Amino acid sequence: MISQDMVKLGTARSVIRDIFEFGMQRAQVVGEENVLDFSIGNPSVPAPKEVQDAIKDIIAELPPKAYHSYTSSAGDNNTRTAIAENLNKRFGTDYTLNNIFMTCGAAASLNICFKAMITDEANEIIVQAPFFPEYKFFIEAHGGKMVLLDPPEDLTIDIDALEKAITKKTKAVLLNSPNNPSGVIYPKENLEAAAKIIKAKSEEFGQPIYIISDEPYRELVYTDEEVAHIPNLYDNTVICYSWSKSLSLPGERIGYILVPNKVENYQELYAAVGGAARILGYVCAPSLFQRVITRCIDVPADLEVYKKNRDILYNNLTKMGYKVAKPGGAFYLFIQAPNLDADEFCERAKKYDLLMVPGAGFGAKDYMRLSYCVDTEKIEKAVPIFEKLLAEYK
Amino acid sequence: MISQDMVKLGTARSVIRDIFEFGMQRAQVVGEENVLDFSIGNPSVPAPKEVQDAIKDIIAELPPKAYHSYTSSAGDNNTRTAIAENLNKRFGTDYTLNNIFMTCGAAASLNICFKAMITDEANEIIVQAPFFPEYKFFIEAHGGKMVLLDPPEDLTIDIDALEKAITKKTKAVLLNSPNNPSGVIYPKENLEAAAKIIKAKSEEFGQPIYIISDEPYRELVYTDEEVAHIPNLYDNTVICYSWSKSLSLPGERIGYILVPNKVENYQELYAAVGGAARILGYVCAPSLFQRVITRCIDVPADLEVYKKNRDILYNNLTKMGYKVAKPGGAFYLFIQAPNLDADEFCERAKKYDLLMVPGAGFGAKDYMRLSYCVDTEKIEKAVPIFEKLLAEYK
Repeated sequence: MISQDMVKLGTARSVIRDIFEFGMQRAQVVGEENVLDFSIGNPSVPAPKEVQDAIKDIIAELPPKAYHSYTSSAGDNNTRTAIAENLNKRFGTDYTLNNIFMTCGAAASLNICFKAMITDEANEIIVQAPFFPEYKFFIEAHGGKMVLLDPPEDLTIDIDALEKAITKKTKAVLLNSPNNPSGVIYPKENLEAAAKIIKAKSEEFGQPIYIISDEPYRELVYTDEEVAHIPNLYDNTVICYSWSKSLSLPGERIGYILVPNKVENYQELYAAVGGAARILGYVCAPSLFQRVITRCIDVPADLEVYKKNRDILYNNLTKMGYKVAKPGGAFYLFIQAPNLDADEFCERAKKYDLLMVPGAGFGAKDYMRLSYCVDTEKIEKAVPIFEKLLAEYK
Repeated sequence: MISQDMVKLGTARSVIRDIFEFGMQRAQVVGEENVLDFSIGNPSVPAPKEVQDAIKDIIAELPPKAYHSYTSSAGDNNTRTAIAENLNKRFGTDYTLNNIFMTCGAAASLNICFKAMITDEANEIIVQAPFFPEYKFFIEAHGGKMVLLDPPEDLTIDIDALEKAITKKTKAVLLNSPNNPSGVIYPKENLEAAAKIIKAKSEEFGQPIYIISDEPYRELVYTDEEVAHIPNLYDNTVICYSWSKSLSLPGERIGYILVPNKVENYQELYAAVGGAARILGYVCAPSLFQRVITRCIDVPADLEVYKKNRDILYNNLTKMGYKVAKPGGAFYLFIQAPNLDADEFCERAKKYDLLMVPGAGFGAKDYMRLSYCVDTEKIEKAVPIFEKLLAEYK
């Protein structure tokens, strides 16, 4: 009588969760400081002081009804205007509040987009591996089907595979750059090539094919690589954003959907986003944090610790001979297992209480994901262990 | 290419919204103080001081990561324990944190329950009119069908109609007491009679039929009528709760689902709730406000203004000869139109800038809903207008 799919999804402990629990148990035996748990993507940098100040100021300055009441379902006008202006400044666009729909974070944004776009069980959403595994469940929750592209050598978008995968059933291509789990930033030329193909196919089939760009890591970039603003490359682009990582607010569930005016049927799509948010019970994005965002919109992400951790690991591992995906952003290293069996490598690493997530669940079984959003001390402890592990393979 | 159902839901301005907009326009002409807008159910009592204090204390006492990080999807353990203990104290139950699943408010709770329970397009959820109109969209969002029971004379549960409506397709009966839009509290005997019927049908069909009890108004009660704790009357009961009204936090999206141990297949249903929350992108309930709830769990709802408004209106209207549903709780009066045509009455009232919502959308077209969560001054201004309106019918 209960949905067995939901029971399974609620019972199935994810691989990541299992590793995390193992780490907790080991911590009780060997001490927390000796468990090198790189499994979870929870920001280790605290939310900046500006966030705490904004909360305190709002409470001091305004009556509770000014920030605890319902906002309109699209969100507070000042918040949406502040976001539009911030984007315009950075990307040379001309967005207004009418292009922004506030949401309870990126997962909510994606769900709302899928509900708005998927009309039929035959509808397909194309996803490039390696990918965030929850995508599949979100797409299927609204009756769609995920079509997965195998990862190419450089872990960017496989343009040939994309061209073959697009059919009349394709509703959207979901992109995620900087990428979770790989940390790779898709080069502008790669995105342009993808845009060209999608545009051609869209014209061939006489129907819009959207790019949905999932961008929770947009601000977490450690090189001078450009994170392209995809609506500047392809008109039918919708962006899903969250402050979970950039302001270290993952628990507060605050983000937005951007629907630019130049999206085909902009009016309809923006309305459908509102309809989908409504019937999925999202009502409005958390109201106090909408005001916090208004005041903190220009606060930069604090990248210092992440960059330091990334540099130590990336430099040492590549020097040793590990193959590591080019980690331009996010806070993940994606490391190829020496014998291309990441499951086995991760098991071996466990002996040293070094915990990572094997890549099979991300659609890339040769690799493992290492989250470097941890204390630098643990990063330093991990380096000699990687050396030992590699020696075991020689 | 876009879901036209979602476009419609996002474009269709609700009746309530239309009335609200009309009120805004009239305010510009005659002054805000002269528009008696009783259309919207937004709490007029501000969140209690304890909430602001809790936020300030949390920020002062804890590092940001302690309250901005992801909680587990079910919610913070301390929060869930505090809620279970509060319920146990009041209702003589023995809940633990394992019976509580934190959510982004009651609308989220309902969506999650429907996604967990509905397995087939034939599945039906029975709803007693008058009812909150969004229920229909939430049920249909997950592929189910709403079966509506017409309102009986006293606006409680129509036991005979319920008995006839339950079939093998029935997954759940959705109850809402104190009721939006009527303010009626379902008497314990009425609930017991419903429970008896549901139990008998459940045994007849050899499958559980749940009661889903939507209780955002549980704490808003003005008489000594008992708001029964339905799990004490019927084992297969799940409760959806929200602090939107009791702590005046509608914008913060914080609530929970209660799944008692004695629910058939408790383990499965609780797991399915987790699975449904996961794939609908809910991730976790807002983390700062989970901690606020822990600290404010015993703070009583401030009823003084609502009770005063209710008494003025109810006493005067009934004295004049209006028929009003017995308003035990919530902050709504449900008033029968003198000629049983609430659409017409609401139009006439508009001449006096007195705005209410006609009952057709709530499944009770003889009635109109008046939200008395407004300043008492406006309540007092409305009384003579009701008198004039009634005179027009004589």
